[in-house]
Amino acid sequence: MRNIKLVLEYHGSAFFGFQRQPGKPTIQEALEKALSKFFNRRMKIASASGRTDTGVHAEGQVVNFKTSSDQKLAQIQKGLNALLPRSIVIKKIDEVPLDFHARYGVRSKVYEYRIWNHPCRSPLVAGRAFHVPNFLNIAKMRQAAKALVGKHDFRSFTSPSAIRTSPESRGASPGSFYVRTVKRFQIKKQGHLVLIQVEADGFLYHMIRNMIGTLLEVGRGKRAAREIVSILKAKDRRLAGMTAPSEALTLIRVTY
Amino acid sequence: MRNIKLVLEYHGSAFFGFQRQPGKPTIQEALEKALSKFFNRRMKIASASGRTDTGVHAEGQVVNFKTSSDQKLAQIQKGLNALLPRSIVIKKIDEVPLDFHARYGVRSKVYEYRIWNHPCRSPLVAGRAFHVPNFLNIAKMRQAAKALVGKHDFRSFTSPSAIRTSPESRGASPGSFYVRTVKRFQIKKQGHLVLIQVEADGFLYHMIRNMIGTLLEVGRGKRAAREIVSILKAKDRRLAGMTAPSEALTLIRVTY
Repeated sequence: MRNIKLVLEYHGSAFFGFQRQPGKPTIQEALEKALSKFFNRRMKIASASGRTDTGVHAEGQVVNFKTSSDQKLAQIQKGLNALLPRSIVIKKIDEVPLDFHARYGVRSKVYEYRIWNHPCRSPLVAGRAFHVPNFLNIAKMRQAAKALVGKHDFRSFTSPSAIRTSPESRGASPGSFYVRTVKRFQIKKQGHLVLIQVEADGFLYHMIRNMIGTLLEVGRGKRAAREIVSILKAKDRRLAGMTAPSEALTLIRVTY
Repeated sequence: MRNIKLVLEYHGSAFFGFQRQPGKPTIQEALEKALSKFFNRRMKIASASGRTDTGVHAEGQVVNFKTSSDQKLAQIQKGLNALLPRSIVIKKIDEVPLDFHARYGVRSKVYEYRIWNHPCRSPLVAGRAFHVPNFLNIAKMRQAAKALVGKHDFRSFTSPSAIRTSPESRGASPGSFYVRTVKRFQIKKQGHLVLIQVEADGFLYHMIRNMIGTLLEVGRGKRAAREIVSILKAKDRRLAGMTAPSEALTLIRVTY
């Protein structure tokens, strides 16, 4: 048996997210269909670094699958890429130790959120960026983001539907489930684009999009940057800002 | 009467190019439909800086139209943008002298051609870049591009269908019609993207795409860089390379 790790790029707009859902096109479904066709038997992936929501893109999603085939990796990659839809590609393929698990082994993940900050919408960045026509005070957004860096309970920034993977259902201690360590929160301006990269050991459901939504309120002067500290402390979702749209979010890379 | 200049951005993939064609969606048709609705009377544009082909994008296409309306420019822009499809936007609006003509007044145009140079296709740049999986020798492409800079007869790089605007039909002297001055030919690498910007006082039909197609053959080692000189001299389309695909081309700006 071999354990094969794949690095995927995909444009999320045509899919209902990563995870399989009955009757809806998803990345996992398209990938498993290609795997099954290529290996001529019903195949499933063993794991993925995590789900991405409907509309979210990836430059470096990681999945793994097991096979007893002795075909060359380059052949498998080429064959699968020919079978996958144009909106998904396998960028990299590697054989990894049998105990490699794409989710449990994650050391950190990097996501990028793109904001088009200009009075006019931009047809050329549409589908990859969120249009914010209002002036954004980037310095204040950076100041607010600093409060999110470090080891915190991020309960205020996750969505109630995170209940589906609640501490009870996983058997973890209730306190620790919401604790994540944000290692880097970088906000760059590039012309009229604001590019926000966040690296963490893991993210809760909707955590990035809720953090971005809150930072945007800071940037627009609707909240003070220092409010972030009290929002974190309150552990109450209702205090944070809106969930920013998914189409502007890209999973950049996963490290193990 | 007022003469109004518009700067347009559009994503070309949903359109059969700029120019009106019966029964097909084009930029001009969408724009004139929005103008007619906004001003509540049948409106046509007076001129555009030029046509863009099917699939070609624009960051700064320029058109003008005439109106007796005394509405504020900001109102006209806002109203038109609300009526235009999501893939077209008016970025800038100005009142210009009555004799301003978006085509005759052009001093120079800048186009950008984007190449995704990586063994794997990229779903995230698809629709905006041409995928070239082979190794490209950028130094040789730059060397070849140098021969294209300056005032030349570019007949070898235009398509036979340019006949539709042939010298005879315009009454110009046959020799001068094909002469253009390329002011800048810049080839930049940005990660796996190769970004090629070309500035000229004007372009013949398919001229950029034919120059790019020829440079790509140089980059792949199928032609020597010095061949460009003899191709130019021959004034024969059959000697140049293939026409590179349109979806990777963007009209960046027009200066007057």
